[in-house]
Amino acid sequence: MAGNKAVAYIEPGKVELQTIDYPKLEVHDGPGVHPDNVGRKTPHGVILKVVATNICGSDQHMVRGRTTAPAGLILGHEITGEVIEVGPGVEFIKKGDLVSAPFNIACGRCRMCKEGNTGVCLNVNPAGYGSAYGYVDMGGWVGGQAEYVMVPYADWNLLRFPDKDQALEKILDLTMLSDIFPTGYHGCVSAGVTTGSTVYIAGAGPVGLAAAHAAQLLGAAVVIVGDMNKRRLAQARSFGCETVDLGQDAPLPDQIAQIVGEPMVDAAVDAVGFEAKGHGHGGHEAPATVLNSIMEVTRQAGKLGIPGLYVTGDPGASDEAAKHGSLSIRIGLGWAKSHSFTTGQCPVMRYHRKLMNAILNERCQIAKAVNATVISLDDAPQGYQDFDQGAATKFVLDPHGMLGDKQRIGA
Amino acid sequence: MAGNKAVAYIEPGKVELQTIDYPKLEVHDGPGVHPDNVGRKTPHGVILKVVATNICGSDQHMVRGRTTAPAGLILGHEITGEVIEVGPGVEFIKKGDLVSAPFNIACGRCRMCKEGNTGVCLNVNPAGYGSAYGYVDMGGWVGGQAEYVMVPYADWNLLRFPDKDQALEKILDLTMLSDIFPTGYHGCVSAGVTTGSTVYIAGAGPVGLAAAHAAQLLGAAVVIVGDMNKRRLAQARSFGCETVDLGQDAPLPDQIAQIVGEPMVDAAVDAVGFEAKGHGHGGHEAPATVLNSIMEVTRQAGKLGIPGLYVTGDPGASDEAAKHGSLSIRIGLGWAKSHSFTTGQCPVMRYHRKLMNAILNERCQIAKAVNATVISLDDAPQGYQDFDQGAATKFVLDPHGMLGDKQRIGA
Amino acid sequence: MAGNKAVAYIEPGKVELQTIDYPKLEVHDGPGVHPDNVGRKTPHGVILKVVATNICGSDQHMVRGRTTAPAGLILGHEITGEVIEVGPGVEFIKKGDLVSAPFNIACGRCRMCKEGNTGVCLNVNPAGYGSAYGYVDMGGWVGGQAEYVMVPYADWNLLRFPDKDQALEKILDLTMLSDIFPTGYHGCVSAGVTTGSTVYIAGAGPVGLAAAHAAQLLGAAVVIVGDMNKRRLAQARSFGCETVDLGQDAPLPDQIAQIVGEPMVDAAVDAVGFEAKGHGHGGHEAPATVLNSIMEVTRQAGKLGIPGLYVTGDPGASDEAAKHGSLSIRIGLGWAKSHSFTTGQCPVMRYHRKLMNAILNERCQIAKAVNATVISLDDAPQGYQDFDQGAATKFVLDPHGMLGDKQRIGA
Amino acid sequence: MAGNKAVAYIEPGKVELQTIDYPKLEVHDGPGVHPDNVGRKTPHGVILKVVATNICGSDQHMVRGRTTAPAGLILGHEITGEVIEVGPGVEFIKKGDLVSAPFNIACGRCRMCKEGNTGVCLNVNPAGYGSAYGYVDMGGWVGGQAEYVMVPYADWNLLRFPDKDQALEKILDLTMLSDIFPTGYHGCVSAGVTTGSTVYIAGAGPVGLAAAHAAQLLGAAVVIVGDMNKRRLAQARSFGCETVDLGQDAPLPDQIAQIVGEPMVDAAVDAVGFEAKGHGHGGHEAPATVLNSIMEVTRQAGKLGIPGLYVTGDPGASDEAAKHGSLSIRIGLGWAKSHSFTTGQCPVMRYHRKLMNAILNERCQIAKAVNATVISLDDAPQGYQDFDQGAATKFVLDPHGMLGDKQRIGA
Repeated sequence: MAGNKAVAYIEPGKVELQTIDYPKLEVHDGPGVHPDNVGRKTPHGVILKVVATNICGSDQHMVRGRTTAPAGLILGHEITGEVIEVGPGVEFIKKGDLVSAPFNIACGRCRMCKEGNTGVCLNVNPAGYGSAYGYVDMGGWVGGQAEYVMVPYADWNLLRFPDKDQALEKILDLTMLSDIFPTGYHGCVSAGVTTGSTVYIAGAGPVGLAAAHAAQLLGAAVVIVGDMNKRRLAQARSFGCETVDLGQDAPLPDQIAQIVGEPMVDAAVDAVGFEAKGHGHGGHEAPATVLNSIMEVTRQAGKLGIPGLYVTGDPGASDEAAKHGSLSIRIGLGWAKSHSFTTGQCPVMRYHRKLMNAILNERCQIAKAVNATVISLDDAPQGYQDFDQGAATKFVLDPHGMLGDKQRIGA
Repeated sequence: MAGNKAVAYIEPGKVELQTIDYPKLEVHDGPGVHPDNVGRKTPHGVILKVVATNICGSDQHMVRGRTTAPAGLILGHEITGEVIEVGPGVEFIKKGDLVSAPFNIACGRCRMCKEGNTGVCLNVNPAGYGSAYGYVDMGGWVGGQAEYVMVPYADWNLLRFPDKDQALEKILDLTMLSDIFPTGYHGCVSAGVTTGSTVYIAGAGPVGLAAAHAAQLLGAAVVIVGDMNKRRLAQARSFGCETVDLGQDAPLPDQIAQIVGEPMVDAAVDAVGFEAKGHGHGGHEAPATVLNSIMEVTRQAGKLGIPGLYVTGDPGASDEAAKHGSLSIRIGLGWAKSHSFTTGQCPVMRYHRKLMNAILNERCQIAKAVNATVISLDDAPQGYQDFDQGAATKFVLDPHGMLGDKQRIGA
Repeated sequence: MAGNKAVAYIEPGKVELQTIDYPKLEVHDGPGVHPDNVGRKTPHGVILKVVATNICGSDQHMVRGRTTAPAGLILGHEITGEVIEVGPGVEFIKKGDLVSAPFNIACGRCRMCKEGNTGVCLNVNPAGYGSAYGYVDMGGWVGGQAEYVMVPYADWNLLRFPDKDQALEKILDLTMLSDIFPTGYHGCVSAGVTTGSTVYIAGAGPVGLAAAHAAQLLGAAVVIVGDMNKRRLAQARSFGCETVDLGQDAPLPDQIAQIVGEPMVDAAVDAVGFEAKGHGHGGHEAPATVLNSIMEVTRQAGKLGIPGLYVTGDPGASDEAAKHGSLSIRIGLGWAKSHSFTTGQCPVMRYHRKLMNAILNERCQIAKAVNATVISLDDAPQGYQDFDQGAATKFVLDPHGMLGDKQRIGA
Repeated sequence: MAGNKAVAYIEPGKVELQTIDYPKLEVHDGPGVHPDNVGRKTPHGVILKVVATNICGSDQHMVRGRTTAPAGLILGHEITGEVIEVGPGVEFIKKGDLVSAPFNIACGRCRMCKEGNTGVCLNVNPAGYGSAYGYVDMGGWVGGQAEYVMVPYADWNLLRFPDKDQALEKILDLTMLSDIFPTGYHGCVSAGVTTGSTVYIAGAGPVGLAAAHAAQLLGAAVVIVGDMNKRRLAQARSFGCETVDLGQDAPLPDQIAQIVGEPMVDAAVDAVGFEAKGHGHGGHEAPATVLNSIMEVTRQAGKLGIPGLYVTGDPGASDEAAKHGSLSIRIGLGWAKSHSFTTGQCPVMRYHRKLMNAILNERCQIAKAVNATVISLDDAPQGYQDFDQGAATKFVLDPHGMLGDKQRIGA
């Protein structure tokens, strides 16, 4: 096998296709690879032929230049594929299996993994907390917006689809298992969403829409999605959500009261993170605005799920404190209401099996909810651009043309 | 019965004894009473002869002038007493019962109470979230640093001690059930403290010491208490805690590493709140410093218990944002580590019965841990002053001289 | 107000309409009233005009003569009504409120109530564990299959519907909140049913159907209902359940494997209890057969929800041990699989508010699932007879003709 | 290395020392080895030099002939050792590490392992549910009452002690981490034991004593241990437990009432299992007696922890039903009280790290509680005999004479 076409980050605003080495069961040096990981053997790994791989909102942080991602970093942490090579240490995953890879890489052997906290595995990222494919400061595991990718600790990480044909039928739904569906679900679970809850989801990007659909699956009575992007709000309404236009001047509690009869909800999810903008016309970046607004509208004793990314350093921040990850938060309000807050990467493994079962038995339509749209690997740069401009679309890359006649732009 | 001697807040730095009306089963107008509560009938209430009532760190916020407490507000929310009159709506509490009253007043009939969130009862405070005796903006229920006090919803709120003589023997321990022992315990429980945990408690005031002792009771392997007050640190060491002197220049993680061999702990509790001071020599007020430091030293996937008070408005704050309850918090760090945060008043009722049983069966020595010290009601002003100056002491007021030969200052 | 028409148990197989006293805020002597409850004052109670009250499978145990229920016992513990009189100790429930009363009577003041275990309140049943309206050995609270009924501890027990007109629109759904919907839901929750679960519900009576619908609401991937009654199985299929005919000779695991591809499920609920019959043609009473079969088909580490009633004494049992409540259970099998078992009355209050919200926002159709059918109070004896003969129907009595043109037999 | 001395089961009442093959990283055929496991490669495994290995009550079931264990089965599932050889698939465990092996073998790759249910791993026992070293019908992994033993999936299963010298100092405590301390703790946790609980532990064998000590560590107010063996009851009293002599005619509730003032406790643990005997003088085998008695004495809404073994088949049972694992259980009583029941093998990995930390920081003295006593491997047959005759002793075998001057019989 000659090469491996992949999507590389080049500079702020620019990604391009490159041909990189075909993956091996070993970590090689390259852009963004941590020195301590170079040369690491992965006999516990497999090589996947990538069947579907999605562009994620968190990729955008890098592509917008809000991180220290180096030129040449191969992107992509939402990976679904077919196993075409298995390492000698792999026992239960077999060649030919169609699998979903959680975006968080985990060893399955450390205390964090044993306790179910696979988002902060201790053995995969020499540089910090937790790991992911194709992400800056996450250890340097090569990204999966590519034809082929190596997945370490395959027995632990991978979720096998029980029936390959059935899975290919539902592949646009199943591809959301690698990240955004579990992430949205985790946001809801950590917010305590349950039967009969009223829920506010801040943000109508793909994670927000996934959280909204997860809330429905969890039995929420009313799901309200807030954003300034009218197309995305329309997308939220398309599957039964209520919406709040944050571009309006009306205060959020008032808009919520118009929907549920009281200026508050039982549970709220921050599906935006640090690149939030202030409410109202002409909102400028206001990194704590979502956190503060969900405290404002969540009922006493409520829980706040915060899957939206907050960073320890943000070179592009508008003030000095935010550059170091410190935001001005109305903690006094949360305290008065006895709020709880759950932050961090979703530990995908906790949820992907149950969500797979819900998909395979047609209890949910996540692809439709997030408006999954197939494009070719070559069209990835265009996809990044459209997504950045606010398309109400979740772009699914199709490196091998295996997604057939699934929903395509222009198709 | 003629009158009722009680401790009143007068102005910043000053409290004094006043004789107020003997309580009735009705809320009367007075300093700090919310207009909507004036005239409220409480047939479900009882009158207590106060046997023990403690000075609390949260009283200090008022006495230091950091709130809008009006002159004449009767202080005191830590109340243990004997029932001397029962309202017609009281069915199970009887005259003569010796009882502990949770500092949070709760109706026992609203959704929050039914769900166990008695710290944010919906029916007792027309002004905001949650209620307490003798506290500004908490509804105006008259405080219990007095000879007599009215407790509403007595069947719901009160915890009866099973044996009066036995209870009087252990009254200095049992008086901690009204607030600080459950509050410290709640901090630990919400921080996930369990068998074998390493725990950091920020603050060696009475709540911090109570949290430290609670951590021991929960089976913690190592309990580390941090403060700048050397007397309080010595008190923490007196019952088996390790300590960290925050007045030292050495960074907190380093000091922790010297104790447990790694610069982090499994769980941390903020027992300080918004009046925190920065670490190191000459630390000045830095309201988010404790929050930020416990994120720094808590392990990945850890939980942070935050019983320390954060306020929605602080007229005495040093910067404009803090005056409105907004603090500069390193949320990015917490997010990277997948931390969870639990804030708010402790719902005392969740814990007081089990802690009572632990006390009565001598599984803990909370009075000793917090250095409970009896003073007369008349000496309350002196107690406030000593406490403000950093005495390593929990002052217990003895309005009726019933505490006998228990530990007394100078005795 | 002259009298109060009500359904009375007379003898095995026979109920009849009687006119009894209009209820007062006091417990009077009568059939089944515990001596210690006679004369008990209930100033905390209200009088309800009964809007809807249902016949329950657990009423059948009495009517079939499987208990020691005395002649004249007024039946009915599923009560929805309008408040027409409030006791002097009631503060938040108001005259005119339309409310649902949990079948378990609870004081809201004891340790069990404070811990959320309202099914085993300590203060309402001098004879044993837990209480209910119109039920033998449950304290003697007069039943609600009547025009009017007294509900004690009204502020604690009652769930107020937020909008009366809206509630009357959905009254056939809301009337299920008093018992079977929460009971079925509790069975599922205690069985660990969640997103993507495969679930087996033993029994297609109203509680079984309610459990099946609850499982759907909780996100189950596949819900399988087992029974021998073909009409009830057809009812289960009508809202999307799979079914297993236990009258067939094929073993249950095999039948389940045909549906889900493996001879086991993630979670199982026993919605039958002690009057179970053995599987296969001509099944005779076999009181532990359901318990044993759900152990057989539940996956390792599974949880078993057991809302189906098991009794401490059964005069009609076929063997001596069963007469004293001892059944032959394959505990070794459950142990090998690390099963957990949750038994007992559903604590309705834990669930009714969230299920109400789901109903009012049309997230579920419980009335349709259980085939709610309105009959007049006078037709109750016929309803009992039809139900006993296996009608796939949940009978809703309409004492005041307020249910209008809702689904009626023959209508 | 020539051979490997090990303890073999021969016939009812008889074990003897044999020299078997030195272990390899592969499963060989032998007594009790499941055919499907023969030839299984274990590159993920390590060879341990056994430092300490204990005789367990569950070994006795085999040795008493109550199972189908074949002659020649090598016993021993409580293993602490030094790593002397690591397989090529082992990444984090190193040669020289001193480690504890949970008695339940688990793959760390299946759904059960990922969900923390390592007691019912799907990949280690072709014959049934869950696995263990040296146990009948558990897959055929060679036991560890030997000089050397192979541990598969070492990165997943093993708990490394952080400091070897410190660990050797506390080795008699740490050796209890492989089974009985976590098992007793699991019984208590699943029974809901917490701060202030009153607890009844049925059985004063090593697991019962470990459960009792775990209850203390969890903050129980009163721990009551019941047994008929006076020496074991004396052992329970030696570390602060209350005791009930079940050989007395007084009913258990009455004996409990004499201790705690009411005939019930908050939580109960069955540390006996199916070989239970009836209460009172001359008690004969009554396999459900413990289960029934803990239902009788546990408070409403209580949880029952059942780590005591119940089997699916018992050739030595006294009645036909029990031979097939069916026992006559008073389920009606448990149901009336809303009890929950948790059964099954303890998933050791959930607890061993936290208990290790408690031991290393001297928060508990488990070796003392269970009266750990060192004997040589050669003395194992005598140890089995003494244990069977009711010695109040936990025998620790010392295959390599590494336990030095630790407590020895006769020393």
